[in-house]
Amino acid sequence: MKRLRDLGEDALIARMLRGFPGGESLLVGPGDDCAVVDPGRGPLRLLKTDAIVEGVHFLPDTPAEKVGWKSVARVISDFAAMGGKPEHLLVTVAVDAEKPVAWMDGLYRGIRKCLATHGGVLAGGETSRLPDGALISVAGEGSVERRHLVLRSGGKPGDLVVVTGRLGGSIRGKHLTFTPRLAEAAWLVRHLRPSAMMDLSDGLAKDLPRLAAASGCGFEIDPGALPANRGCTRAQALGDGEDYELLFTVPPRRWRAAADQWPKGFPPLSIVGTLRPPGQGQGDALTGGWDHFSP
Amino acid sequence: MKRLRDLGEDALIARMLRGFPGGESLLVGPGDDCAVVDPGRGPLRLLKTDAIVEGVHFLPDTPAEKVGWKSVARVISDFAAMGGKPEHLLVTVAVDAEKPVAWMDGLYRGIRKCLATHGGVLAGGETSRLPDGALISVAGEGSVERRHLVLRSGGKPGDLVVVTGRLGGSIRGKHLTFTPRLAEAAWLVRHLRPSAMMDLSDGLAKDLPRLAAASGCGFEIDPGALPANRGCTRAQALGDGEDYELLFTVPPRRWRAAADQWPKGFPPLSIVGTLRPPGQGQGDALTGGWDHFSP
Repeated sequence: MKRLRDLGEDALIARMLRGFPGGESLLVGPGDDCAVVDPGRGPLRLLKTDAIVEGVHFLPDTPAEKVGWKSVARVISDFAAMGGKPEHLLVTVAVDAEKPVAWMDGLYRGIRKCLATHGGVLAGGETSRLPDGALISVAGEGSVERRHLVLRSGGKPGDLVVVTGRLGGSIRGKHLTFTPRLAEAAWLVRHLRPSAMMDLSDGLAKDLPRLAAASGCGFEIDPGALPANRGCTRAQALGDGEDYELLFTVPPRRWRAAADQWPKGFPPLSIVGTLRPPGQGQGDALTGGWDHFSP
Repeated sequence: MKRLRDLGEDALIARMLRGFPGGESLLVGPGDDCAVVDPGRGPLRLLKTDAIVEGVHFLPDTPAEKVGWKSVARVISDFAAMGGKPEHLLVTVAVDAEKPVAWMDGLYRGIRKCLATHGGVLAGGETSRLPDGALISVAGEGSVERRHLVLRSGGKPGDLVVVTGRLGGSIRGKHLTFTPRLAEAAWLVRHLRPSAMMDLSDGLAKDLPRLAAASGCGFEIDPGALPANRGCTRAQALGDGEDYELLFTVPPRRWRAAADQWPKGFPPLSIVGTLRPPGQGQGDALTGGWDHFSP
C-alpha cells in the first residue's frame, strides 16, 4: 500500500489539486505563497492558510507566546512574499483538553503581539479538541496593490537570484521569533520590482527549484555567495528550513539601478545565483530542504 | 492548575478574544457564524474557518470521502447561516504520514463533490504532518448581499423561534452526509427575512441560548413542538449536536405573511419556541448540547 510518506509533499499537493475548477475571479490558485482574488477593482485580495503542529514545528515545552507569534508571523511572511500586507485573520486552535489555560493565554499573547507589530486584525476563529498535542492554523486575507503583485512565476533567464538576511540554523531559535520581511518586501516591490518572489520556508535547496520551475527556468547557485548564519555550514544555509527570508529574482539592470538605495536598517541583500534557460543550470542537483512527508 | 477542560468552550473563546482591536472594515468580528468584512461597496465578505478532527468529528475508519464532504459542508452551512454563499476556500490537511494515499484521494473526492454540488472554488491550501491521526481545516470567504445579511443578534422579544428539518441522532450518519441549508437560507432571507439566524452545530440546547444571548433576549421552548428525528427522544432532539439545520427567529407577522410559500421540496419548518424579554423564559435551564472542552 502506498503511504503519504512515499509521495513527498510537492507530489502530494499536485495529486490533490487535479480536477478542481478555478473561478473567474481567482487570478492565482494553488501553488504560490498565497491565492489571489481579483475583486474587479481596487487592490487584489490575498488568501492564505498555514498550520503549525506540536512535535513538528514546535515542541511541547516551547513557550506558548513564541508559538503564537510564529503561527501568525508565518502567514504574514506569505503576504509579504506576494508584495502585500495582512488584513483579516482567523485562528483555529486544536488542542488537548489537558493543556493548562495559561498555555492558551500565552499563545494568544503571542498572536496579539505579532498582529500589533505587523498589522492585521483578528476576525474570528475557533477552538477544537485534539486527542493529543496542539495544532494552530491561521487563515485569512491580505491585500496587495495591483501593480505591486509579485508571483513565483515571473522570473526570466538571466535574472539575478537574491535573498534577504542570513540563512541556516533557524532551529536554534530564529524559527520562533523571526520578523516577517513585510517592510523589506514593501520596499522591494516599489523600488527594485522583483520579477518573482517567495518566502524561504523549506530551505533554499527546496524553494529555489520551486520558484525556477514556476518561472519555467533553470538556475545556478554560487555556493560561495551564500550568506550563511554564524556557525552554519554552506550545506545548512542551503538545506535548513524556516529561514523566513525573501527569495527573489530581478533583471540585472533593475538591480544596478536601485540596489544601492536598499535602506541601511534592513538585513543585507545577497546575490546567490542566476536564473538560466529551462534545462540549463543545476536542475535537480540540489539536495536538502524540508519535506513534511519524507522520512 | 486550571486546564482547558475546566473552562468550557464559550468561556475559553471569550477569554481568548479579550484585548483584540477590531478594524474599520470589520463589520462583525468573532462570535457569529462568520466574520463580516465590509469592502465599502458591493456584497459583504464572509470569513470562516472550521476544523474537524479524527477521533472527535470522525473516526479512523470513517470513509475518507465522507470526511472530505463533511469538512466543506460545515463551512458552507456557516455561510448559509449568514444568508450568504461560498466563494473561495482553502483546505489544510494535517495527517499522519502513514495514512494510505488512497485515504487522501478519497478525502479530496469528497471535497470536490461538495464544492461541485454547492458552489465555491478551491483556492489553495496546504498539507502538514501530524504525529498521529488527521485534522482537516477549511477556511475561506463567502459573500452576502448587504440587504440579506442575517446576524445572531437581531432577534426581538416576541419573535418566533423556528428550525428547519428534523433534529437529533445525527451521529447515526447524517453528520457525514448532510446537505448544508444553502438553498433554504437563500429563500428565507428573500421571503421570510429572519431577524436572527445561525446553524445548529452543537444542539438546540446549546445554540438557542447563544442566539438569544446575542440578541439580548430570553427564550422559551415548547418541548412538544420539537421535530425529533425518527427514533430520537425529545432530549436527543434538544441535546444532540451536528444537526446542521438552520435556527432562526422571525416576527409573527412576517411569518404569517410568507411561511405558507415555503417551497414543497424543502425540509419542514417547525416553530419550537419564542424569544422573551431579557431575564424571562427558561434562561439557562436547558441542559445538553456539545462542548469541546467539557468532560
